[in-house]
Amino acid sequence: MTSTLSRALAHYPNRFDPGGLSELPEHLQETIRRRNKVLGPGYTLIYKEPVEFVSGHGAHLIDRDGNDYLDAYNNVPCVGHAHPHVAEAVSRQMAAVNTNTRYVQESLVNYAERLLATFPEELSKLSLACSGSEANDLAVRVARFHTGGEGIIVTRWAYHGLTREVASFSPTLGTGSPLGPNVRLIDPPDPRLVAPGSTLAEHMRNQVRGAIDDLERHGYRLAALITDCAYSSDGIFTDPVGYMKAVVEEVHAAGGVYIADEVQSGFARLGDSMWGFSRHGVLPDIVTMGKPMGNGLPISGVVFRPEVCEEFGQNVRYFNTFGGSSIPVAAGAAVLDVFENENVQQRALENGTALRTGLQEITKDSPYVAEVRGSGLYVGVELVKDRETRESDRSLTEDVINDMRDRRILISGTGTAANVLKIRPPLAFTSADVTRFLETFAEVAKDRLYQSG
Amino acid sequence: MTSTLSRALAHYPNRFDPGGLSELPEHLQETIRRRNKVLGPGYTLIYKEPVEFVSGHGAHLIDRDGNDYLDAYNNVPCVGHAHPHVAEAVSRQMAAVNTNTRYVQESLVNYAERLLATFPEELSKLSLACSGSEANDLAVRVARFHTGGEGIIVTRWAYHGLTREVASFSPTLGTGSPLGPNVRLIDPPDPRLVAPGSTLAEHMRNQVRGAIDDLERHGYRLAALITDCAYSSDGIFTDPVGYMKAVVEEVHAAGGVYIADEVQSGFARLGDSMWGFSRHGVLPDIVTMGKPMGNGLPISGVVFRPEVCEEFGQNVRYFNTFGGSSIPVAAGAAVLDVFENENVQQRALENGTALRTGLQEITKDSPYVAEVRGSGLYVGVELVKDRETRESDRSLTEDVINDMRDRRILISGTGTAANVLKIRPPLAFTSADVTRFLETFAEVAKDRLYQSG
Repeated sequence: MTSTLSRALAHYPNRFDPGGLSELPEHLQETIRRRNKVLGPGYTLIYKEPVEFVSGHGAHLIDRDGNDYLDAYNNVPCVGHAHPHVAEAVSRQMAAVNTNTRYVQESLVNYAERLLATFPEELSKLSLACSGSEANDLAVRVARFHTGGEGIIVTRWAYHGLTREVASFSPTLGTGSPLGPNVRLIDPPDPRLVAPGSTLAEHMRNQVRGAIDDLERHGYRLAALITDCAYSSDGIFTDPVGYMKAVVEEVHAAGGVYIADEVQSGFARLGDSMWGFSRHGVLPDIVTMGKPMGNGLPISGVVFRPEVCEEFGQNVRYFNTFGGSSIPVAAGAAVLDVFENENVQQRALENGTALRTGLQEITKDSPYVAEVRGSGLYVGVELVKDRETRESDRSLTEDVINDMRDRRILISGTGTAANVLKIRPPLAFTSADVTRFLETFAEVAKDRLYQSG
Repeated sequence: MTSTLSRALAHYPNRFDPGGLSELPEHLQETIRRRNKVLGPGYTLIYKEPVEFVSGHGAHLIDRDGNDYLDAYNNVPCVGHAHPHVAEAVSRQMAAVNTNTRYVQESLVNYAERLLATFPEELSKLSLACSGSEANDLAVRVARFHTGGEGIIVTRWAYHGLTREVASFSPTLGTGSPLGPNVRLIDPPDPRLVAPGSTLAEHMRNQVRGAIDDLERHGYRLAALITDCAYSSDGIFTDPVGYMKAVVEEVHAAGGVYIADEVQSGFARLGDSMWGFSRHGVLPDIVTMGKPMGNGLPISGVVFRPEVCEEFGQNVRYFNTFGGSSIPVAAGAAVLDVFENENVQQRALENGTALRTGLQEITKDSPYVAEVRGSGLYVGVELVKDRETRESDRSLTEDVINDMRDRRILISGTGTAANVLKIRPPLAFTSADVTRFLETFAEVAKDRLYQSG
């Protein structure tokens, strides 16, 4: 084990530096040493002092010593850690049976009908898989099959998953993971990149048009544009909306399909909508989803316009052993129950707005905060060396993240320069949680965001 | 919906033909119609009359009307349907917390240590994912990175998974799913393919040597040979063993690695070993596993020799959201408990031998049974039109499968010509289950295997 991080991995925001191992508490050191001995490639811990939790509820995580941490980072346990309704539904199913999609399962059909009801009626076919990576892999396989093209367009620092195919269009994975020759990158929808006199829609359309031209010049017809509707790893760009219409027109004109990756932005994360794409007033050809779908149980999905997937289905076998089997489906259905019973989307909208407003208030006079942005319970705070030059400040970002962690609030970082605080709590985040978060953040801000470095 | 199957999918053994829908019982028809309306591409049911189950225990599945079916097909619920110890462990973890590998989790470390203890000490690094497909995808990514080669060798009718990468070396998916230009096929280890005077080891070595030469002639250096240690989709070839040593030597001499795909053959399926590769007396560079690992919870794994994965880990980010998270790990650990507490491997060996011996006895004078083969609780029965010519009989195979299903015993089919009965029960199969199976099979055999067509 070395104390320096490899160049290819150096970007990873908020990564635990193994060089700091000997400074950790004894038991943690011991567990991490054992972990390093047995785990395979690519595993990383986060924070200068990693954490271990033994229980959780709502947006709270409890460590071995009974300390309560406020989780403002994890999107998977969307309806709350260890939510009793989900736990009970899964327990009941585990005690009954788990069969796969080669057998008839009315619960699967019920779930598919309920989930599809949250989509525009044109998006009427659902496939289930285990992970967001599998969902995006299938989406692109279908897009390639349907269009006959190979070209893929993604944003400059996108992350869509970890299979070999999906990694080939996930530039955030860094230089160790090569992009495919059929992959082109465009700017994320950052309004600051728009030339004076132009519009974001014009800028994005030109970006996509340029990528299509370059693909065609290299012999690749377009298969798909795929975007994370929250542009999470690019730095969180949820607003303004409205530019996607022009973009999707370009994609369709070139014979490609538009895939909305809702693994991050879906399931009401953005507060004002169940699905991120609908904020943009566009209809994707394919939508993918994952992380929060089963509140921790591995389940992911792909929703299609039927004409896009029909031919693939007639020609290609696709059997996903766990995808659509009874246990993950029980978890998915229980999550939908909670969304209905607890009015999750409305709460995410309200508490998200309160959180963002509070952060804007706390940071409005800081020379190191370029922007507080986001929607619902997905908030980015961009930290810079200087508000005028907007030079990124990764070091400050990591300091704020670790100061928050030391005060028992979990957030992390993102963005092309790893200089954006990523605040993405379970949707179970309450108004009391917002208050606790803002009080603590104000303390950290006083130290870090109002003192010269 | 059409009553004919597409050419690309026509091979799928024991596939439900949608043309038969209107002949099914009312409620089943209705559920299948609803299912067809909402599910995406590639879904298939099995049997002429598909089945739905509402509960299960051991190797038994119970339908809506309370009928007990003997499950002699499903390998995922390896320690038995709805096993109480696994259900309890998962329920307990669901009520506590689910965190991912960015956090310290002692339970993950404990599990990794226990699982690795079942491997030779050289195989000392574990990565966790969700599905066998993700495991094989990662294995091949690492193999490519480590070797710098791209060439992949698989058996002629292999299935390794469903990501775009893994599908590109899964010829069983059929003509709709193209093989990669870097993929070469070799014979499965079927002793009947060996020329007179030669040996299986010589035959297999020559096959691999030829594939390597052809890859190199096309500019591809070898990355990996990957084999399912039970050759499930090729038709189940577990014996004889002993040829792999020569094969692995060729692979290493060409700079490639050997990946043992234990998704089917692992976790004591073959009775005389926990892992299929150890029957062959070889040490793989990478081992993948999946299906039975969590008794139904989505969990899969990749085990590496450390020198094979080290550089990949230093250069490529690999974060699998669900892989290694607390809930699947709780399921995996509970499965290992049951293996120890219930002596699962020994029972699989004994009951598997009894099952195979009984089948050989029942079929020994049938003109339509070419061979009963397999190991442990993985049995193949090859059905032919004539024992001399060995011409495959797919139609007879489907008749036997459906006759068994009508008598409430579940098996299915496999093999290049879909003419091999695939008998692969949960390892919870008891000696009473063996007796019931053989009694029923004897009845079907009397009708089907001793009467002229």
